[in-house]
Amino acid sequence: MRYDIAIIGSGPAGLSAAVNAKIRNKSFIIFGNKTLSNKIEKAPSIDNYLGLYNISGGELKERFENHINAMDIEIDEHKITNVYAMGDYFALTSGSEMFEATTVIIAIGTDSAKSIEGEDTFLGRGVSYCATCDAPLYKGKNVCVLGYNEEAIHEANFLNEIASKTYFVPMRNTIKKDLSSIDEKIEILEKKPTSIEGEMLVNKLNFQDESLDIDGVFIIKDSMSPKNLVPGLELDGQHIKVDANMKTNIAGLFACGDCVGRPYSYLKSAGQGLTAALNAVDYLAKKDR
Amino acid sequence: MRYDIAIIGSGPAGLSAAVNAKIRNKSFIIFGNKTLSNKIEKAPSIDNYLGLYNISGGELKERFENHINAMDIEIDEHKITNVYAMGDYFALTSGSEMFEATTVIIAIGTDSAKSIEGEDTFLGRGVSYCATCDAPLYKGKNVCVLGYNEEAIHEANFLNEIASKTYFVPMRNTIKKDLSSIDEKIEILEKKPTSIEGEMLVNKLNFQDESLDIDGVFIIKDSMSPKNLVPGLELDGQHIKVDANMKTNIAGLFACGDCVGRPYSYLKSAGQGLTAALNAVDYLAKKDR
Repeated sequence: MRYDIAIIGSGPAGLSAAVNAKIRNKSFIIFGNKTLSNKIEKAPSIDNYLGLYNISGGELKERFENHINAMDIEIDEHKITNVYAMGDYFALTSGSEMFEATTVIIAIGTDSAKSIEGEDTFLGRGVSYCATCDAPLYKGKNVCVLGYNEEAIHEANFLNEIASKTYFVPMRNTIKKDLSSIDEKIEILEKKPTSIEGEMLVNKLNFQDESLDIDGVFIIKDSMSPKNLVPGLELDGQHIKVDANMKTNIAGLFACGDCVGRPYSYLKSAGQGLTAALNAVDYLAKKDR
Repeated sequence: MRYDIAIIGSGPAGLSAAVNAKIRNKSFIIFGNKTLSNKIEKAPSIDNYLGLYNISGGELKERFENHINAMDIEIDEHKITNVYAMGDYFALTSGSEMFEATTVIIAIGTDSAKSIEGEDTFLGRGVSYCATCDAPLYKGKNVCVLGYNEEAIHEANFLNEIASKTYFVPMRNTIKKDLSSIDEKIEILEKKPTSIEGEMLVNKLNFQDESLDIDGVFIIKDSMSPKNLVPGLELDGQHIKVDANMKTNIAGLFACGDCVGRPYSYLKSAGQGLTAALNAVDYLAKKDR
């Protein structure tokens, strides 16, 4: 099946895009987490979401959940790692699975984590952003998880069932503080990785004072670099370049929310998600003519 | 006093801009109607304002009102008819009154009403968009109000206290239906005006079958053309041209909401109002450096 619209991301931008795709009777799929965005929940008090003065992040998230539940919108938890523009449509891959859509809306948010030397070079050749997608390739091998968020711990536990040896590097202080749920056979390294090395494939993860022989590095962060997600996508610094209609440089591909730049704000993201969806609907209508 | 930010418009875009200007501790003034936007109230059911599923226009408007009241934001009811870029700041005029601001955010919405032949040519020379501003110029003269909204009836009643003769043309069916509050001395003409004529100043309003000797034509609609509001402003069709940061072609001047184009939507407008305000804040910070 080919969807009219594929939405990547379940923060305010992605949810708002989904709401509008639904209202416009388009076939669509939204990829993300059923728990929506973890960031929202942590916001203490939000004063600038017009119409909802002085609301907590938790309450706002609950309102978003109620909204999409009332409209029967379900989130698909496949992690999309690549989007390819095929001319007439887009191919979205999640490990060995593939999805097709006529238009794509990218709402992947942003992550302040900088790339590690070698990360971009070895992506797909020993570097992965998704354990669920790529774990089978590392059966009986040595892997290391660089964990930027809580999800990384689950990913490491899952990898440890398949790999022969799993290392875990907590990349943020918040992760260091709560490692209670990590499998005890996983070796925790509290040091800063400096580079990923290899030949055809990754074979080393380097720290300042040590080097680890490794077959795979899993980098688990809130959002991947848009450059790595969509080949050929035009950026403006770290952000996806869009016009006021949320159009990117690729026809049929739209982007919205934090991944297109500041201000980072729920209301801005939600408004842009709506704009992206309605422009995708326009694009579909013109294509059909 | 020179404000940091002047906001023109009290729909979702203008209100959201004001909320964010307030949060960022800027001095600002917001021009509009204390009743906010009349359009919102009339919307039956809104499904795409993320977080507020299936809300009526009336309820949403009440939520907006509560939000700005909670933040002590007051709307100034001066009608701004011109914005001049003075280099270092902007001068905003309302009749003979003038306001100054370092940045301006235009959120005037849009009106589907087309210009009448001669409207743009004679603007300021017998054509006016604001009775409160310009009525004193027409003492003892003949004027005609072209009424596109309910406000036009109040404007006509006010003009009739000053002018020697006031005509009123209801330009929309909704206005024709409810003329009960109009002063009985005002002559109502239920016909379509075709052009405004004159030499240095307006002297005629033409209809298909008749011509009226007139000194002033007051055109009262929800929003004026942005071209007439700000000399030198770059448009894209009927809309103000902006980038994804809501910047216009004039430094320090931002625009948001319906006046920058489709989709016409409360959530989009609110999100853009936020973006415009935070970009105005950035502009102010860079200017101070």
